[in-house]
Amino acid sequence: MSVVTDDNNWGILPLVAELRGLRLQSLQNRQRLQHPPKLPAKKILRDIVDNLAAVLFPNRLGLPDINDEGIDYFVGHTLDSVMRQLNQQIGLELQFYAQQQGLAQDSQPQSVQITRAFAATLPSIRLLIDSDIQAAYEGDPAAHSADEVLICYPGIYAVIHHRIAHQLYRLGAPLVARVIAELAHSATGIDIHPGAQIADSFFIDHGTGVVIGETAEIGRHVRLYQAVTLGAKRFDKDDNGILIKGSSRHPIVEDRVVIYAGATLLGRITIGHDSTIGGNVWLTHSVPPNSFISQAQVRS
Amino acid sequence: MSVVTDDNNWGILPLVAELRGLRLQSLQNRQRLQHPPKLPAKKILRDIVDNLAAVLFPNRLGLPDINDEGIDYFVGHTLDSVMRQLNQQIGLELQFYAQQQGLAQDSQPQSVQITRAFAATLPSIRLLIDSDIQAAYEGDPAAHSADEVLICYPGIYAVIHHRIAHQLYRLGAPLVARVIAELAHSATGIDIHPGAQIADSFFIDHGTGVVIGETAEIGRHVRLYQAVTLGAKRFDKDDNGILIKGSSRHPIVEDRVVIYAGATLLGRITIGHDSTIGGNVWLTHSVPPNSFISQAQVRS
Amino acid sequence: MSVVTDDNNWGILPLVAELRGLRLQSLQNRQRLQHPPKLPAKKILRDIVDNLAAVLFPNRLGLPDINDEGIDYFVGHTLDSVMRQLNQQIGLELQFYAQQQGLAQDSQPQSVQITRAFAATLPSIRLLIDSDIQAAYEGDPAAHSADEVLICYPGIYAVIHHRIAHQLYRLGAPLVARVIAELAHSATGIDIHPGAQIADSFFIDHGTGVVIGETAEIGRHVRLYQAVTLGAKRFDKDDNGILIKGSSRHPIVEDRVVIYAGATLLGRITIGHDSTIGGNVWLTHSVPPNSFISQAQVRS
Amino acid sequence: MSVVTDDNNWGILPLVAELRGLRLQSLQNRQRLQHPPKLPAKKILRDIVDNLAAVLFPNRLGLPDINDEGIDYFVGHTLDSVMRQLNQQIGLELQFYAQQQGLAQDSQPQSVQITRAFAATLPSIRLLIDSDIQAAYEGDPAAHSADEVLICYPGIYAVIHHRIAHQLYRLGAPLVARVIAELAHSATGIDIHPGAQIADSFFIDHGTGVVIGETAEIGRHVRLYQAVTLGAKRFDKDDNGILIKGSSRHPIVEDRVVIYAGATLLGRITIGHDSTIGGNVWLTHSVPPNSFISQAQVRS
Amino acid sequence: MSVVTDDNNWGILPLVAELRGLRLQSLQNRQRLQHPPKLPAKKILRDIVDNLAAVLFPNRLGLPDINDEGIDYFVGHTLDSVMRQLNQQIGLELQFYAQQQGLAQDSQPQSVQITRAFAATLPSIRLLIDSDIQAAYEGDPAAHSADEVLICYPGIYAVIHHRIAHQLYRLGAPLVARVIAELAHSATGIDIHPGAQIADSFFIDHGTGVVIGETAEIGRHVRLYQAVTLGAKRFDKDDNGILIKGSSRHPIVEDRVVIYAGATLLGRITIGHDSTIGGNVWLTHSVPPNSFISQAQVRS
Amino acid sequence: MSVVTDDNNWGILPLVAELRGLRLQSLQNRQRLQHPPKLPAKKILRDIVDNLAAVLFPNRLGLPDINDEGIDYFVGHTLDSVMRQLNQQIGLELQFYAQQQGLAQDSQPQSVQITRAFAATLPSIRLLIDSDIQAAYEGDPAAHSADEVLICYPGIYAVIHHRIAHQLYRLGAPLVARVIAELAHSATGIDIHPGAQIADSFFIDHGTGVVIGETAEIGRHVRLYQAVTLGAKRFDKDDNGILIKGSSRHPIVEDRVVIYAGATLLGRITIGHDSTIGGNVWLTHSVPPNSFISQAQVRS
Repeated sequence: MSVVTDDNNWGILPLVAELRGLRLQSLQNRQRLQHPPKLPAKKILRDIVDNLAAVLFPNRLGLPDINDEGIDYFVGHTLDSVMRQLNQQIGLELQFYAQQQGLAQDSQPQSVQITRAFAATLPSIRLLIDSDIQAAYEGDPAAHSADEVLICYPGIYAVIHHRIAHQLYRLGAPLVARVIAELAHSATGIDIHPGAQIADSFFIDHGTGVVIGETAEIGRHVRLYQAVTLGAKRFDKDDNGILIKGSSRHPIVEDRVVIYAGATLLGRITIGHDSTIGGNVWLTHSVPPNSFISQAQVRS
Repeated sequence: MSVVTDDNNWGILPLVAELRGLRLQSLQNRQRLQHPPKLPAKKILRDIVDNLAAVLFPNRLGLPDINDEGIDYFVGHTLDSVMRQLNQQIGLELQFYAQQQGLAQDSQPQSVQITRAFAATLPSIRLLIDSDIQAAYEGDPAAHSADEVLICYPGIYAVIHHRIAHQLYRLGAPLVARVIAELAHSATGIDIHPGAQIADSFFIDHGTGVVIGETAEIGRHVRLYQAVTLGAKRFDKDDNGILIKGSSRHPIVEDRVVIYAGATLLGRITIGHDSTIGGNVWLTHSVPPNSFISQAQVRS
Repeated sequence: MSVVTDDNNWGILPLVAELRGLRLQSLQNRQRLQHPPKLPAKKILRDIVDNLAAVLFPNRLGLPDINDEGIDYFVGHTLDSVMRQLNQQIGLELQFYAQQQGLAQDSQPQSVQITRAFAATLPSIRLLIDSDIQAAYEGDPAAHSADEVLICYPGIYAVIHHRIAHQLYRLGAPLVARVIAELAHSATGIDIHPGAQIADSFFIDHGTGVVIGETAEIGRHVRLYQAVTLGAKRFDKDDNGILIKGSSRHPIVEDRVVIYAGATLLGRITIGHDSTIGGNVWLTHSVPPNSFISQAQVRS
Repeated sequence: MSVVTDDNNWGILPLVAELRGLRLQSLQNRQRLQHPPKLPAKKILRDIVDNLAAVLFPNRLGLPDINDEGIDYFVGHTLDSVMRQLNQQIGLELQFYAQQQGLAQDSQPQSVQITRAFAATLPSIRLLIDSDIQAAYEGDPAAHSADEVLICYPGIYAVIHHRIAHQLYRLGAPLVARVIAELAHSATGIDIHPGAQIADSFFIDHGTGVVIGETAEIGRHVRLYQAVTLGAKRFDKDDNGILIKGSSRHPIVEDRVVIYAGATLLGRITIGHDSTIGGNVWLTHSVPPNSFISQAQVRS
Repeated sequence: MSVVTDDNNWGILPLVAELRGLRLQSLQNRQRLQHPPKLPAKKILRDIVDNLAAVLFPNRLGLPDINDEGIDYFVGHTLDSVMRQLNQQIGLELQFYAQQQGLAQDSQPQSVQITRAFAATLPSIRLLIDSDIQAAYEGDPAAHSADEVLICYPGIYAVIHHRIAHQLYRLGAPLVARVIAELAHSATGIDIHPGAQIADSFFIDHGTGVVIGETAEIGRHVRLYQAVTLGAKRFDKDDNGILIKGSSRHPIVEDRVVIYAGATLLGRITIGHDSTIGGNVWLTHSVPPNSFISQAQVRS
Repeated sequence: MSVVTDDNNWGILPLVAELRGLRLQSLQNRQRLQHPPKLPAKKILRDIVDNLAAVLFPNRLGLPDINDEGIDYFVGHTLDSVMRQLNQQIGLELQFYAQQQGLAQDSQPQSVQITRAFAATLPSIRLLIDSDIQAAYEGDPAAHSADEVLICYPGIYAVIHHRIAHQLYRLGAPLVARVIAELAHSATGIDIHPGAQIADSFFIDHGTGVVIGETAEIGRHVRLYQAVTLGAKRFDKDDNGILIKGSSRHPIVEDRVVIYAGATLLGRITIGHDSTIGGNVWLTHSVPPNSFISQAQVRS
């Protein structure tokens, strides 16, 4: 018996002590507080996005059985509870940054303000997503109905998350926005930074591997395929060799541009309206409207 | 107290009204019915696929503890319940399209027919997946056993979904099939349209970013690596500038072809048997059997 | 009524028999045992990794409310339960391979030994991940705090899994390690083989489509972007045309190398320290330290 | 190994056959249909009652966080979903009895009618329960607030169920009503037949073992203690020795009567208003108003 | 901040030590082993009983949707899994008692034997419960159908548990049996010791407070009401004043006896067939067949 | 279609309005606040009691697999989380009563004080329960081991709840205590008011229907059977006819008294030590030590 007991001895006591030591050392290194404030939680934000989607499309993404008498009660009740949850998550983000900057401010009034302002944008978000669905339906020969697009296109899934995340980013909750963007990234392989500005009727087909950077600007009726990158040429450092943050460093893509699979567009370049960028193209300079860019053919 | 109440006022009442207005307008725009029929549900289809996998591989993907006396009861009971669920989902799809076309037909007899026909294909699906597992085991130097391949290779996960989805697509349930394909896409980054015809002993290694289009045809013992695209050159439009749907527009890949990571093959081209397509190759024309295609080297 | 009954007849009885026949035939083909041993389970390993992450970062990935008095009890209790679970999963792997090789050995002592050795590496794992977080924070202009990096960067999620999986691989539990690696692959699109050796301060940005092979060796302060492949040129076969397994076949990447999106590095080549590999580059030969490799520009 | 397999053989095959034989025989004995209609489900009715309680007391038994802006949406949404569920359960009951009587009628219109009529009684139910809470608060020296009574008195729990069940019984859903009554019985030990007619301000203290029969009639401001029985003297049989069902056979208890623990009142007797019945009394005849009935003292 | 930390200090460290001391002392007092074997678990046994009930009544207590093609697969699969679970629980009981008696025997063969013998009794259990349902239907003027009795009568719920528990008690698993009996006791207030021998067609109405002792023997067609006790006169002690265990000490109730609410029958007395025992009667001596016993009336 | 819509119209709009009117009226009647504070929650308190039981008996009621290395971490971690939860529930109670009395005090310091004081009593609670288990084992001829008593005797279940509830009542959290007492009441049919003072080695057999009042005092080694009432003779009212609350009004039961099933003891009487009270006895006066009280026999 004693042998078995010995065999099951994992050495927890010294391990716990060693891990505690590392935690304290890490806090010291980063000059962090002993009791770090809580952060927004991925799991709760997933519920929040699901509920916002249900508010926007109650028949399709909410309760499929809902009928006319009950639908507004459903929308109103879901809004009421999701807004309170969102307010709390935004409050955590504000508190976190306040404390990081040594401020002890009450985040409550500001988070209420952001949440309320966000709520007011929901109708415009719905309109944008309607235009995105229509663009997907028109842009994919395999699509049979707008409803099919809404329930099974990963590009639509990603864009619903982005439309929500972008408003939160814009209103002052960039961390909450980022977590929402990563939820879509994990589910679809489409990585859109919440800062990216995207006009209506946007369609991403297949989508896996798409990356759209923080300061990208995308016009109306733009279509992207899988593995397209709208990235930065990242060599801007300050005198100390530290990366400079925040400047406009991603492409501007004008109206009605189509970019095929695997194309990589880097830096603050402008792709003129009605251009087509071919698959796997590597592009670091601007092109005028109506351009047609393609890769050299391989030898056979 | 009143201040807090005021702070928590999200403006739900006008928001509910505004969203209702947008819903009605959107229904009008699309000339849709007031009470849209239910659609197949992603969550239920995930359970259905899991249960079908358990029926096909009861020891490995069903109940690991199952023994000889109980295994057929498990298979039979799971089949019974999964077929009823699948029948229901197929019925929803049929009803949805019937109603979209203004038909009021009873979808029940047809969905039973499709479900029953699908059930009859399960043994052939099992045989195909057995061949895929064998191909993965032989094709990957890192694989130590067929069981390991079955439980942890994303390529196998995707191909199990495809073998199921393709039969449903073929039998007349393309939307159910599409949702199943997207479940695999989300979990693996491998996007195989359920219409694609794939012969036995198919292996995708790593897989993230693979896209295989609706009309692609793939022969026996074909091997693909990550980020391979078998896509369409999408410029076919009708006189009104609308994309033409349904024609054969994706590559034909013959037996024993290997396609390395990142290669992009577009259009109704034919890759002759026993060819090798190198990584990152961009290919829009057919190649004869036994071809070896590779990208030009970069300058250093 | 009888018609409906007839309609609902799925033909389960013959189907169950046919599937049983296929199972037996498959067992025979692979000369497998009638009662195959259980395999490690993906779902349980997901919990195990979550709990290990909670042990390593109790405030951020464990219980956000935990305070000073309770934190060591939480860490100790979680360790105790996660080690017992891990021991069980490792035991299943050992038993599986023993039985495959016709051995009837008791896997218990060996699995306890591996589990205990793994437990002892947890502090070093924590230190490595701390360095990875720091590298991510410094390497991404969009990052605002180390905490944000920890909770929402997919590259960090993947690297936490890899640091854990690599130790298990090294200590003799390669299948458990592989399942853990695939959990990260599915969630992030980043596919790191658990055999890969990666030094401290490693950062993958965006990450979708990254593939790092089994024998890759990566130095300190290396940075990768999405869709980078560190793969093998897989043509080594033995005289019977069967792939040779196990040899060193993936790149060596030295300290402070940066590899941009979509670059493909194949074979046992060495990328000298402080080099930069441009996006979409296809590279199959070694380059000296301080190299700067980029793709030819496309024509416009 | 084979021995263990043998040991694990439970003899399922013959057992399944034998149980099937018994089922068929039992169906024959009872001349029942091969495919018996579904019955109302206990588990769903538990949810229904919980939701009705939440509708009636949204702050206390619904969402404790609900505020003024959201409360009516919550009530409306909960009503909408609970009424549809209830309608379905009532439909099952109606179908069951119709089929039992060989009728093939569509139960839908009738169940909708009953459900709608039930909905209309909810305000009066709320008023009655308010009076019951007040009676409990006034009647128990240990009660400190009406809210305490609402959340922790088993007598109130039972009476909420009864008020709901009685309306359903009255409107024509006696089986649904009975299941609801048994939910309260199981949780509290208080067994009130849904047929019992109980006026306002009713209070049962402690309650375990209380039994109130189908045709009992209870006036206003009545108070009962644990283990009180208002039962039938059950000897009415017809000429064939079969019990006669349905006649008035339980006591009438007039206003302001108090009945102490363990008292047993049997038969269609009348307890005049303002009477007190002592503990453990056994009573089978009527008593006039203002009576005081007690048991003979035991010898010491 | 420090004040709050202080306020949240619950004194866990000394408390953990003190509780550990008490545990060790208690083990010493009872001369128990340091590592006590596991006991059967209430929660798992609840599932087991639910599954056994589903096996016995698959349409009513199993899957309401089950049809002819699937029903035997359901029964077989449920049997297979429930027998393995039950075998495990019985094994725990046997091991517990073996270790208590200082034996180190392998409980596996014996538990398999008991489980298999139990499985063989399931058809007879079904027949007995059929007779109990029939008795309830005939005995209660408020019952409208046998199905209603099966799904909502607490007496039937208790008797299903007892029929199962009694076989397990008889076959050598008294602790498992006891836990099952207590599950029914908690849900219904009916406390039947699993040792009690009860013939067919047994009916308990209302039931709260019924107690039936270990050595009670009950004939066919017996009917009990709430709060009936069939108990022991517990004064048998040995020379050391310690209670003597195991002797026959509860009543024998012959065929067709009816016992009304609250009657207390104590000791090894015999109630002759076709007798009626009135409510609240206190009886400690035998009565001949066809007796009619009632309590003296109270004065008014 | 429109007919169905009409049929499904439950009249929610007017119902919501009517229920809102009743809520407001009820608030006015009781002069209650518009935003009533939250109350302690039954569901959370159930978890708290389960966790406290796990802390007290970690092997039996906590984690059955726990071993020596992990047990104190389990106890410490569980304590830490349960104390924080309990603190929160006690805080809700204090706030509720403060607000009821028009006070706006911060309940936090007081709830921490009560919680901490409660934590300190846990060792004494464990000792008391140990004595209760021993008493049950010695007092029931059917008990085979102390462990069996702990896991399946309802009397022990009730007494664990009471030992916890009584300390909370005593320390100033009577509502939390009451909810805990009702959890035991619902599960066992044993209703012990948390105010009752009960010395060590207390045993209730069977238990259904036992009621023990708020001011009862029970000595050491007392044994009760089912349906025993220790109640009040409730006729004390003030000049306005309102019940007087709080005075000592329940029996004192001295050491080593045994009270058999169904006995009813009412008022502030004293049962002298070593007395025996027979079943169904009705007793409203004190009896000296060593008394033997029994009911008159019925006529046959």
